[in-house]
Amino acid sequence: MKSIEEHLKTWTLEAAQLLKDSFENTLTITYKSHIADLVTDMDKNIEKFFIDKIQHTFPAHKVLGEEGYGDQIEGKSGVIWIIDPIDGTTNFIHQQANFAISIGIYENGVGKLGLIYDVEGNNLYFAKEGEGAYLNEKKLPQLEKVTLSEAVVGVNATWAGPNRRINHENVQQIIRKSRGTRSYGSAAIELAYVASGKLDAYMTLRLSPWDFAAGLILLQEVGGIVSRTDGGPVQLLEQNSILASKPGLHNEIIEHLT
Amino acid sequence: MKSIEEHLKTWTLEAAQLLKDSFENTLTITYKSHIADLVTDMDKNIEKFFIDKIQHTFPAHKVLGEEGYGDQIEGKSGVIWIIDPIDGTTNFIHQQANFAISIGIYENGVGKLGLIYDVEGNNLYFAKEGEGAYLNEKKLPQLEKVTLSEAVVGVNATWAGPNRRINHENVQQIIRKSRGTRSYGSAAIELAYVASGKLDAYMTLRLSPWDFAAGLILLQEVGGIVSRTDGGPVQLLEQNSILASKPGLHNEIIEHLT
Repeated sequence: MKSIEEHLKTWTLEAAQLLKDSFENTLTITYKSHIADLVTDMDKNIEKFFIDKIQHTFPAHKVLGEEGYGDQIEGKSGVIWIIDPIDGTTNFIHQQANFAISIGIYENGVGKLGLIYDVEGNNLYFAKEGEGAYLNEKKLPQLEKVTLSEAVVGVNATWAGPNRRINHENVQQIIRKSRGTRSYGSAAIELAYVASGKLDAYMTLRLSPWDFAAGLILLQEVGGIVSRTDGGPVQLLEQNSILASKPGLHNEIIEHLT
Repeated sequence: MKSIEEHLKTWTLEAAQLLKDSFENTLTITYKSHIADLVTDMDKNIEKFFIDKIQHTFPAHKVLGEEGYGDQIEGKSGVIWIIDPIDGTTNFIHQQANFAISIGIYENGVGKLGLIYDVEGNNLYFAKEGEGAYLNEKKLPQLEKVTLSEAVVGVNATWAGPNRRINHENVQQIIRKSRGTRSYGSAAIELAYVASGKLDAYMTLRLSPWDFAAGLILLQEVGGIVSRTDGGPVQLLEQNSILASKPGLHNEIIEHLT
């Protein structure tokens, strides 16, 4: 894993430079499923960049990437890189900030290395199974218990209105009882914020593996609790709702949601 | 105004250093009106820091500050510094990021200088009446028209649930029709984001003069449209709801709200 870690970090910084350089150019933006689901040529280029490097250096490894240039993944066996080349593409386009490269590396379904790089903020969140999580050079402390009334919760306003995925009145209750809510538009950054204590919890209703693969490993290393919003276990290779939280608070939120 | 501008910027950077130094110390946190309304000793210290400087250098100027150490303001005549020493106190406590020093300087009710300094991000937004707005050294372009379906809107999830200030179903409609929403927990930063194009609009239901005094001047310099959420004019020295937006979009949002 040591060699993998070094390559992971080096390639991430190279990819980040490509992203920053792209701010000078005109982006080609296309829509995926609907007008709010954007993808740029840079999402595709960065995913290909990582796949080329991985295939050359670690030919036995598999890649699951948001843009679909990776492998057909049939199960959890072996080493799988789960990659979101730009998490927060809308922010990348609108803000040139608050987007991240997110990479989780799993071996036989066990999270080994997790990296979330907030490119514009130059904040590198990194975790290694059993060895803790870091923000840049600083080791992140274990998360401590907190109550909802003292908590800042990451939750998007979408879920406070009628929607197909959750009873929005339950979400409104959580919002009302919390100290406040925030929404940054990048699940990877929001999970990294929970791991580093900037948010006390984060919940959302539809994430794909590349959105949460790295965040899960960060959270596991600092004692964060992660489940689906119905309290069930997250399935690594599927779409999931996600509730990531400090201890104590996790139960309190689940009680409002179920 | 040139001398005022120089002092304003110098004092802001000094105050920012005091805030950054305070991260090493233990904060004394007290509650203002309720458990979610926090104030620290640093809010008070920074306000006093500015008042001391202003009284010494510009004894004829008046100060309106969030923490109440300034002058009793009876009207708009003369030069008034409207100061929020830490906008986003909850972020200051929870994140040590996403908080700002916000200062608007008005002369006989006319906005002359506006400054919002995102301390942790080291982003200085500055505007001077008739001379444009700047992010650090870069002049901000005039805001262009945009439609709601292409817009990222700053709105807190609180307003999407039942509340005393606005019909939340109208807010839910705006959320649904937008490209996405964000919430950062600092009105000053959110107004600066609209002025710099990182958000297309920002709306909130209860702001005090120190929350928006600087932002209004930034927005005026880039062609942003600002009103109350009922479309009426903002009253400088009172609490207001605020809708700040790119042109075009402002009308579209008002139509949903009224």
